Amino acid sequence: MAKIYLEDIPLEEAQNRFREALAEAGLWEPFNAELLTLDEELLGRVLADTVWAKISSPHYHASAMDGFAVRAADTHGATQTAPVSLRYETEAIYLDTGDPLPAWADAVIPIELVEARSEKGEMAENPRHPDVIRIRGSISPWAHVREMGEDMVATQLVLARGAILRPVDLGAAAGCGYGSLEVVRKPRVAIIPTGTELVSPGDPIKAGDIIEYNAIVLAAQITEWGGEATRFENTPDDFEEIKGKVLEAAETHDLVMLIAGSSAGSEDYSSRVVEQVGQLLVHGVAVRPGHPVILGLVESGRKTTPIVGVPGYPVSAALTAEIFVQPVLRYWLGLAPALPHQLEAFITRKVNSPPGDDDYLRVAVGFLGEKALAAPLSRGSGVITSLVRADGLVVIPRGEQGLNIGDQVTVELYRPREELQNTIFAIGSHDLTLDLLAQHLAPLQRRLASVNVGSLGGILALKRGETHLAGSHLLDPESGEYNLAYIEQHLPGEKLRVVTLVGRTQGLFLAPGNPKGIQGLQDLSRADVSFVNRQRGSGTRLLLDYHLQEHGIDPASVSGYSHEEFTHLTAAALVASARVDCALGIEAASRALELDFLPLYSERYDLIIPQEYADSDLLAPLLGLLGNPGFQKAVSQRPGYDVSQMGKLVAELP
Amino acid sequence: MAKIYLEDIPLEEAQNRFREALAEAGLWEPFNAELLTLDEELLGRVLADTVWAKISSPHYHASAMDGFAVRAADTHGATQTAPVSLRYETEAIYLDTGDPLPAWADAVIPIELVEARSEKGEMAENPRHPDVIRIRGSISPWAHVREMGEDMVATQLVLARGAILRPVDLGAAAGCGYGSLEVVRKPRVAIIPTGTELVSPGDPIKAGDIIEYNAIVLAAQITEWGGEATRFENTPDDFEEIKGKVLEAAETHDLVMLIAGSSAGSEDYSSRVVEQVGQLLVHGVAVRPGHPVILGLVESGRKTTPIVGVPGYPVSAALTAEIFVQPVLRYWLGLAPALPHQLEAFITRKVNSPPGDDDYLRVAVGFLGEKALAAPLSRGSGVITSLVRADGLVVIPRGEQGLNIGDQVTVELYRPREELQNTIFAIGSHDLTLDLLAQHLAPLQRRLASVNVGSLGGILALKRGETHLAGSHLLDPESGEYNLAYIEQHLPGEKLRVVTLVGRTQGLFLAPGNPKGIQGLQDLSRADVSFVNRQRGSGTRLLLDYHLQEHGIDPASVSGYSHEEFTHLTAAALVASARVDCALGIEAASRALELDFLPLYSERYDLIIPQEYADSDLLAPLLGLLGNPGFQKAVSQRPGYDVSQMGKLVAELP
Repeated sequence: MAKIYLEDIPLEEAQNRFREALAEAGLWEPFNAELLTLDEELLGRVLADTVWAKISSPHYHASAMDGFAVRAADTHGATQTAPVSLRYETEAIYLDTGDPLPAWADAVIPIELVEARSEKGEMAENPRHPDVIRIRGSISPWAHVREMGEDMVATQLVLARGAILRPVDLGAAAGCGYGSLEVVRKPRVAIIPTGTELVSPGDPIKAGDIIEYNAIVLAAQITEWGGEATRFENTPDDFEEIKGKVLEAAETHDLVMLIAGSSAGSEDYSSRVVEQVGQLLVHGVAVRPGHPVILGLVESGRKTTPIVGVPGYPVSAALTAEIFVQPVLRYWLGLAPALPHQLEAFITRKVNSPPGDDDYLRVAVGFLGEKALAAPLSRGSGVITSLVRADGLVVIPRGEQGLNIGDQVTVELYRPREELQNTIFAIGSHDLTLDLLAQHLAPLQRRLASVNVGSLGGILALKRGETHLAGSHLLDPESGEYNLAYIEQHLPGEKLRVVTLVGRTQGLFLAPGNPKGIQGLQDLSRADVSFVNRQRGSGTRLLLDYHLQEHGIDPASVSGYSHEEFTHLTAAALVASARVDCALGIEAASRALELDFLPLYSERYDLIIPQEYADSDLLAPLLGLLGNPGFQKAVSQRPGYDVSQMGKLVAELP
Repeated sequence: MAKIYLEDIPLEEAQNRFREALAEAGLWEPFNAELLTLDEELLGRVLADTVWAKISSPHYHASAMDGFAVRAADTHGATQTAPVSLRYETEAIYLDTGDPLPAWADAVIPIELVEARSEKGEMAENPRHPDVIRIRGSISPWAHVREMGEDMVATQLVLARGAILRPVDLGAAAGCGYGSLEVVRKPRVAIIPTGTELVSPGDPIKAGDIIEYNAIVLAAQITEWGGEATRFENTPDDFEEIKGKVLEAAETHDLVMLIAGSSAGSEDYSSRVVEQVGQLLVHGVAVRPGHPVILGLVESGRKTTPIVGVPGYPVSAALTAEIFVQPVLRYWLGLAPALPHQLEAFITRKVNSPPGDDDYLRVAVGFLGEKALAAPLSRGSGVITSLVRADGLVVIPRGEQGLNIGDQVTVELYRPREELQNTIFAIGSHDLTLDLLAQHLAPLQRRLASVNVGSLGGILALKRGETHLAGSHLLDPESGEYNLAYIEQHLPGEKLRVVTLVGRTQGLFLAPGNPKGIQGLQDLSRADVSFVNRQRGSGTRLLLDYHLQEHGIDPASVSGYSHEEFTHLTAAALVASARVDCALGIEAASRALELDFLPLYSERYDLIIPQEYADSDLLAPLLGLLGNPGFQKAVSQRPGYDVSQMGKLVAELP
């Protein structure tokens, strides 16, 4: 098993190589059209041929009113006092709206302006079929007539080739004489997940199993981009079996996506399969995430089919599809490259980047006043929530080592700008109540983008003007008060409102049944007790340090004191998986993971909000929720939460 | 047949009445969920229940590298010169990437940093299963481990209720333990077209027939908004038959849309049907277009079903659905009202509006530098191309009489702002070459929005700074030159580039075979010859007036001189339908409608472009096309076009 060298091909070169190989194989051509019946099924399809009007619309001169068709010239001279009479059938004839004008007529008089008479001059029995009409005013030619071609004239351009069909486009095409339309055939894409360890979503799992959802994500992406996806069953890491699947898929599809398993040999299988069944063009691109991507061609006797080997980590897989597959699909569909939806924004924290790679950074974006900010999300290529939470991507180009706080960057947006205007940035300490707030804000057209940097990190973000609010629970040992001392230190003179979000119980997370018999903080220095800490600057870390000192415990004696986690839940997860014996955190996180909990301290968790935002439309729904009984109930049902002070004004500063 | 009074209910009141009636009937509630298998079919569905993580992801501590799992503490003190040896199985064990960490281990050493040895200290035969490993550096706890919960921790919020599912959302839900998801049931909407005169798209037609495409447009809209549409067959104007269809549809659908025919009685049928089968809430809303809309409830024994009577004109039908149906669907789906995508723009011409109605004006939007302009499109409720070409809507509220040139308005956008940045405004004279330009520009990511106001209108639009370019063919009788004299008069001192688009042949459109034996302009004053003119300010009108004078013909002697059409094609259409005997215009329009053509004059059609736009990226593809052989060929294949001067610089002014 020769491990194929991962070439570090620059992104653009890899894309070019792929495109050139497709061109040589005659595959870099827009797809043929298919002629389909014109109906709502064509919504979203790409028009393969320009729609020139076959007929005019209306295709005849039509009455625009209920009334009598006349020759305008016959009405000349008619006035209130000198009416003109016209004979039915030869000089006037009744039309409903939409009826065709007879060839001799050139105008319509609305029925309400006409006196319908019998031969003898009496009121006609049928006002729509009199013997004579009397009119008391003249009318201009073409009055109350929808002229032929008012909407479209035969031969004019109605829809240009390459249009993505919208509802009204279908109507226009039908109106100018089409009963069917030439649309571009959908590219068929096969998606083959591989890996012996794969299980399907919702199936029971054990350690080492991987829930296979890359194929679902890729299939949905292909659908979204106008293709037709076939999702193959999971294939174990077996060279011959994978090769068979690839050849089978290539026969009936326009493109094959082969998803590598995460095991060591898997990616080798992919590249060896491609070498054996065709041509390996690229293995390894200088892009992150997505580095080990494979590009090649399958020769399956009757046809040549491009193949993309997709890395197994979910963020790599989704971005590989965006970077390498979407452009090919657009080209095949005859669409111009996707228009970039870009925004200039300022980065909120330092980011390191491998200088050899084009680095795709996921960011949350929000507006602080006029200023757009981009907050980097998790870099892990296994962290799919970084894509779920992303408002866009920032590409850090090859040759750059990273970004500094405040650097201006171009964000390729995933969401419309209007949604970003409704984004509330909450940078600071993590609390489950923020999740509940996010859930309750969604129907109120506000999105809460919370970034967890700890309480002190939130205060520093406020100082740099980078967040609408910061959640904080920093105990001042001297006063026993929360947050205000830290605000005074870091944000002196700033106009701020401090409002209580919730009271919480802090204590020790313990394995169910408390097998180590831990009774309090004093047990942390026991040799047989391991601990996991929270990061510096977090309120919980401060609480720990304060109480360790109170108890006279040396941090160095606490096993695991230097292992830092960034959230209550990840700390609790380490206890739940029996990796450590205990951690300090809030009761809700402990109960969520079905741990035992030793309550130790009550604390206050506040929101610190610059007054300009506290009084803004943007934050009004959030502050409104703090007084909402439904929301308070939802929070109080989580263990360890006290909502009695929720929404209480702590301070209006300065 | 009592004609029901069209009440002029204000829009908001009509919407409220409908909503309140739905509430009373227990129908103003978000729909129930349905539990569906989690796969790509759920793309675009609305999440009915918040997704809280059922399991963590990863759900175990996983090796992030190919390497050896160890206890970090065992590696303390290892250095280059003082290596540490660890025994296989008890102190170190080989893991592939993704394998679970054994319970005793807390870190992974990458395989390339390890010396794998046999019992005797030799190189191990199998580097993944040695007897001992030797390491020359210590490692920190949790190094090269993907910790359980790195992506998601059990119980955390992953997706909020009401989310419209995207590809990555499906992955995240699968990753945290879901095999199926609760999504909101799709609202089922029945669409019933009525009218005896209806024919299906593509069918042969005769005068008086209406091509029924409203139902297709509505069905596509419903699909786009997340509903499920059933399109019923065309139903003739028969009271009992319509009533039967409505009751049948109400039984199995959540909402019924009944499209009125355009004949006089049709709308009465709709309102009488609603009265008979349930409750007529609203008939007639002070909104334009869409005035005769009907809102009501159908009582069909087992259930109550809302019904919307949709006017038969296509623009009215599509906007009625947007205004009355889309909000109901969004509410049923549990979505917040659609976020407005708005833009402030300046209106380019005066618009009159009925003061009693909320008036929905369709506009094309473009950017001239930083300034956004909104050009009003056709007002006719039968002109579906006004919706096809619309970039957005401007609502002129009740109580206002219209808009003046330069008024600032809020446009509700149909297209993303980025596309509007690529819109080239061409205001001026009409020519078929502009259609061909639009077609060839589409794949180059430029949209040509051409508004036909005649040559002089275009020059005046340039003067007001309202267009990127103007097409013009204004003959100066004194010099025999084109355009320059008019530019000098109206745009003195402006920095402009004048470039020839095309040479054209002007002449008379004649019925096939020329039955009236028209031989030249002199025949226009014959009593048996009727004519249709072009509007004042158009180059063709100027040409006519110049040559009438040359011939000494009095315009008053020309029958139809005062009947003005705005395009070559609509003028030609009047000849084609035998309404008039002749018109003056370009050869291409004549041939397009299969008319005879009497060539009279050759003329030059130029593009007048402010220099700042002529040198811009925006216009570069357009100017590039003028030198493109493929484009020149497409133009020259149309009759009467001379491309020999295409792209030639006429003048760089001043």
